[in-house]
Amino acid sequence: MSAERAPRSRDELIELLRREGERRYHDAHPFHRRMHEGTLSQAELQRWVLNRYYYQTRIPIKDALILSKSEDPAFRRAWIRRIHDHDGEREGEGGLAQWLRLADGVGLDVELVQSTRAVLPGVRFACDAYVTLVRERSLLEAVASSLTEFFAPDLMTRRVQAWERHYPWVKAETLEYFRNRVTRARRDSHEAVDYVVEHAKTYELQTLCVDALIRKTEILWQLLDSVEAAGSAGERA
Amino acid sequence: MSAERAPRSRDELIELLRREGERRYHDAHPFHRRMHEGTLSQAELQRWVLNRYYYQTRIPIKDALILSKSEDPAFRRAWIRRIHDHDGEREGEGGLAQWLRLADGVGLDVELVQSTRAVLPGVRFACDAYVTLVRERSLLEAVASSLTEFFAPDLMTRRVQAWERHYPWVKAETLEYFRNRVTRARRDSHEAVDYVVEHAKTYELQTLCVDALIRKTEILWQLLDSVEAAGSAGERA
Repeated sequence: MSAERAPRSRDELIELLRREGERRYHDAHPFHRRMHEGTLSQAELQRWVLNRYYYQTRIPIKDALILSKSEDPAFRRAWIRRIHDHDGEREGEGGLAQWLRLADGVGLDVELVQSTRAVLPGVRFACDAYVTLVRERSLLEAVASSLTEFFAPDLMTRRVQAWERHYPWVKAETLEYFRNRVTRARRDSHEAVDYVVEHAKTYELQTLCVDALIRKTEILWQLLDSVEAAGSAGERA
Repeated sequence: MSAERAPRSRDELIELLRREGERRYHDAHPFHRRMHEGTLSQAELQRWVLNRYYYQTRIPIKDALILSKSEDPAFRRAWIRRIHDHDGEREGEGGLAQWLRLADGVGLDVELVQSTRAVLPGVRFACDAYVTLVRERSLLEAVASSLTEFFAPDLMTRRVQAWERHYPWVKAETLEYFRNRVTRARRDSHEAVDYVVEHAKTYELQTLCVDALIRKTEILWQLLDSVEAAGSAGERA
């Protein structure tokens, strides 16, 4: 029966992805709201930066898995840029290095952050689940799971403003990662949306893409749940 | 018991890898010998080019899997170059595009080659086994399996000379792929040897590396077995 359903139009699919993604996006998480309202303590902000770094380290790994699923050199040529964005062209460059400077900017021990040994178990499980999703699902679904980037540019813009206003003790130059993400996330999400719209040609494939995006929002949400819940357990970093 | 064996010295390990790889390297395969002696027919040379293209298409895929297994941005920054080497920076560049020009140079239908639909089953299985090996084994073993590159520069140099001499009907400019591989394979294999020597710290890990290299030589050998055996079945391309 469902096999007979006509595929959604391009606009319907984009609207559905946007709606399902937006209402689950982690900017609405209580911990995240508090971050932007300026009511996180230094210890809380540090806990977020330390744990989120583990998520950051999974990005080039899941992007390499996406590359490995593609048979198209043109697709790979475009997608490989994301790995360079995070790893940089040389030591000290790229998103991971920028995140470590942010860690320094919020007063964390950079070596501890980089080791990832203080990462909360729940955060680790959620981030690893993202890599597993990308490894096990189709290329199309893996690309669709990246569509949370759709909502990232607005969030990054607001984040820089919120941090500069509420957490003046964080060195402004260490917010470089968030600033860079604004244009890159916009470019990346447009590329991924185009890919999904072009390749999700059946209703069923479209639904799988929406499911993958929802699962990804759950991963980002769980990360914040774990960071928030760790508050009562004291400072771990 | 074997857990008590002392690891081989750096030189012993390199010598072992070189010896085990060299004596199984596919340059000694009868079909390959005939290629360099100049006794392959145009149909045989075409069959090799068409089938070997499938192997070429697996390279960026296995290299992306290797990237995905590394936790080290510095390692990834170095290894990612291999993907660029094959995919190029833009349409028409890179090793895969060069191989398609070679296909044109030997008189093949480039679209047919690129589609990979005429690839012999045995060739496909062998090449897919390479991707599976890289996917399923450790990063160290996956890197070790690339060490056939150790022997490639010499082979490429000899191949260009042999082809120019024996197959003058092949346009010389389409041998670009082989020419480029001389310096790149040298650089890549040195990098991979250094990695293996540094990370194979126990006798057991060293043995796993030698095993991975041997398996890789079997894959390259099987490719030629299949191409050779197809001769009696007539021209498939």
